[in-house]
Amino acid sequence: MTAPPPCHTRVAQQPASPGSVGVTRTEYIDLPEPLALECGRSLHPIRIAYETYGTLSPRRDNVILVCHALSGDAHAAGYSSEPDAPSARDGFGAEDQGIAPRGGLGWWDGMIGPGKAFDTDRYFVVCTNVIGGCRGSTGPASINPATQRPYGSSFPVVTVNDMVRAQQLALHQLGIERLLAVTGGSLGGMQALEWTIAFPERVASCISIASTARLGSQGLAWNAIARNAITADPNWQGGDYYGSGRAPQAGIAVARQLGHVTYLSAEAMRQKFDRRLQERSSYSYTLDAADFAVESYLRYQGRQFAARFDANTYLHLSRALTYFDLAHSYGGSLERAFANTRARYLLITFSSDWLYPPSDSQEIEAALRANNKPVEHHTLQTSYGHDSFLLEEARQTPLIVEFLERVYAEVQARAEWSDQ
Amino acid sequence: MTAPPPCHTRVAQQPASPGSVGVTRTEYIDLPEPLALECGRSLHPIRIAYETYGTLSPRRDNVILVCHALSGDAHAAGYSSEPDAPSARDGFGAEDQGIAPRGGLGWWDGMIGPGKAFDTDRYFVVCTNVIGGCRGSTGPASINPATQRPYGSSFPVVTVNDMVRAQQLALHQLGIERLLAVTGGSLGGMQALEWTIAFPERVASCISIASTARLGSQGLAWNAIARNAITADPNWQGGDYYGSGRAPQAGIAVARQLGHVTYLSAEAMRQKFDRRLQERSSYSYTLDAADFAVESYLRYQGRQFAARFDANTYLHLSRALTYFDLAHSYGGSLERAFANTRARYLLITFSSDWLYPPSDSQEIEAALRANNKPVEHHTLQTSYGHDSFLLEEARQTPLIVEFLERVYAEVQARAEWSDQ
Repeated sequence: MTAPPPCHTRVAQQPASPGSVGVTRTEYIDLPEPLALECGRSLHPIRIAYETYGTLSPRRDNVILVCHALSGDAHAAGYSSEPDAPSARDGFGAEDQGIAPRGGLGWWDGMIGPGKAFDTDRYFVVCTNVIGGCRGSTGPASINPATQRPYGSSFPVVTVNDMVRAQQLALHQLGIERLLAVTGGSLGGMQALEWTIAFPERVASCISIASTARLGSQGLAWNAIARNAITADPNWQGGDYYGSGRAPQAGIAVARQLGHVTYLSAEAMRQKFDRRLQERSSYSYTLDAADFAVESYLRYQGRQFAARFDANTYLHLSRALTYFDLAHSYGGSLERAFANTRARYLLITFSSDWLYPPSDSQEIEAALRANNKPVEHHTLQTSYGHDSFLLEEARQTPLIVEFLERVYAEVQARAEWSDQ
Repeated sequence: MTAPPPCHTRVAQQPASPGSVGVTRTEYIDLPEPLALECGRSLHPIRIAYETYGTLSPRRDNVILVCHALSGDAHAAGYSSEPDAPSARDGFGAEDQGIAPRGGLGWWDGMIGPGKAFDTDRYFVVCTNVIGGCRGSTGPASINPATQRPYGSSFPVVTVNDMVRAQQLALHQLGIERLLAVTGGSLGGMQALEWTIAFPERVASCISIASTARLGSQGLAWNAIARNAITADPNWQGGDYYGSGRAPQAGIAVARQLGHVTYLSAEAMRQKFDRRLQERSSYSYTLDAADFAVESYLRYQGRQFAARFDANTYLHLSRALTYFDLAHSYGGSLERAFANTRARYLLITFSSDWLYPPSDSQEIEAALRANNKPVEHHTLQTSYGHDSFLLEEARQTPLIVEFLERVYAEVQARAEWSDQ
């Protein structure tokens, strides 16, 4: 086993506010070997960007892996040490919660920190940027060693299984072989579920939030349209736009606007915008002015996202989302997929989430119960839609705190966890 | 009053199949005067494309005006006399009903014809292409008399009220002053509602289907994103693409795909596509292949629509949809808006229509009841979503037949209707 680096001593960590992990810094791991991908190609070199919060216990039994969603990154909590860093929390309606998206606040800061759901006084939280990403991990904007130029169109298609296997290798480099819990919302929840099947012996529990075992037709459709908006932009240039001075900013803005509306509920939008006009008292009678507040808001979201997020990464992660299908990958049925898992599951869903509806997690619950696996599923009554996983922190917290306490007590009683 | 042309003698009408109005031909009316638009500008000349089905009664009391939705046109029933005419029925899932979209079948053919909901053995049905349209009526591709070039970006923004006033002037040219009924779905339903308020003395009844008195925030958002997809396409050229050899085909295809998904329900999509792969047995592991049947279908829909529909018209009609707000236009409340109407109302909505949900028509119903106006509202349990208004013909038919019979009996008893 590789000698573990001193990853349990956090750098640059100072309290910024009560319950905050303080200022955090993204670090990097280079994987020593190529990774064989599901598509048949292999990827090398692979760098993984990660952050950690809290302290690794001497038994290394308190690790929680946090997996991010489509637009996220490794910076899940605290304030970035790079003061101008864009925040993946932008556009998640954080402003509704009175949280200014200033100074690169982590995208799940409300959930990770001292006394929070993922309590950094007790647990050692790790978050990595997925492969294919654009925030430090190897992705389409990285240098292709074969050409010494950015991959662009030559970056291989990666799957959720590939992402998870890369995470496992990165954790191994950090000396971490077992996870107390793996968690995430949306695409992050897919990764959490995949972990429990790909590495059953390494995962004590899974907290999958607002996620699914596979997108349905409508979810496939939204993703296809968002990708089409990017690839229809001539500045995409077939994916080889790096260094050209042109990027598909307009296309990714449309993709983001579309995604954004699917993350909200009609009711949440009505409460926030209704048909309010934006800084005007009457219609402009033009085609392209943003007369309505909701039109102005969407333009802002599109611009902000285009400025911080790489279009090729969007395409890759969207493709990974659509390919994810546990039944398809593991034996043809969801029941078979979960047959060999050893984790305890907590599923959290939201009544107003029509993109990843509670019924999707009910199917997961049923497949687990059919295998006599321990699972609990809580559907919270909310109005924020899919974004509830990022916004309804206070209501998720007690469920997660209680679940993790129980799992941690079980793990501490297990002999095999004392000898990694 | 202008002498009526012999519009009650139908040309080129021959039965093509039982219940069909046969082969139909689009005809044209030129309005004699400029139309003052809500935006403050005026439009002249105005040509209105229209079709008629059935025979005008001697008392001219059997006229039903059919208003089309965003992607429709004047060709509502029968087979077009132009054999290669594109069908506005394309993309409405007509293939699900075993109806081939061949030879330009009218977009509401299942509803209009001998023995159908709008029974051409009894009623004289008129359908006009709205102003701003691209299928024969004056729109952004028409010649601007001031420049002798296509309007493009200089075409004025038109509203639902403008469309309705242009229809009224066209009907006047045809010698028609009163409508037994005005009907339509979606944007067509908006026009039907607007008619009853703008011209209360001219309308005996209104059949508004899958419509609303105003779009909510989410509806505004979908429309804004679709418009953004078009205006983000460099080939749009600010709206002045006519004659340039380039048109925003890619942008309007994305807009159409987005619209299309909002017209369906998640359940209808699941039934039709699920996660079925398109002519392949495994993933392509590419970003841009249409691996899934739903992806392939959306591309087809986008291509078909881009080939038959003008992008500027899409922008204008989408804008008209978003500006439509009866309460805003008429006195500040829906109750006040309907205060002076004299029509009998039939509202039809569909349980699976999340774009124009039944609750929107419940608000209309409540406002009418508060004014002691005659209204009935039927919500049909369907799975097709918003497209139900085009697909669930058999279930709408008895409601409409019974309603029209009652209204026609009332009208025939009214003295003022015998003396137009």
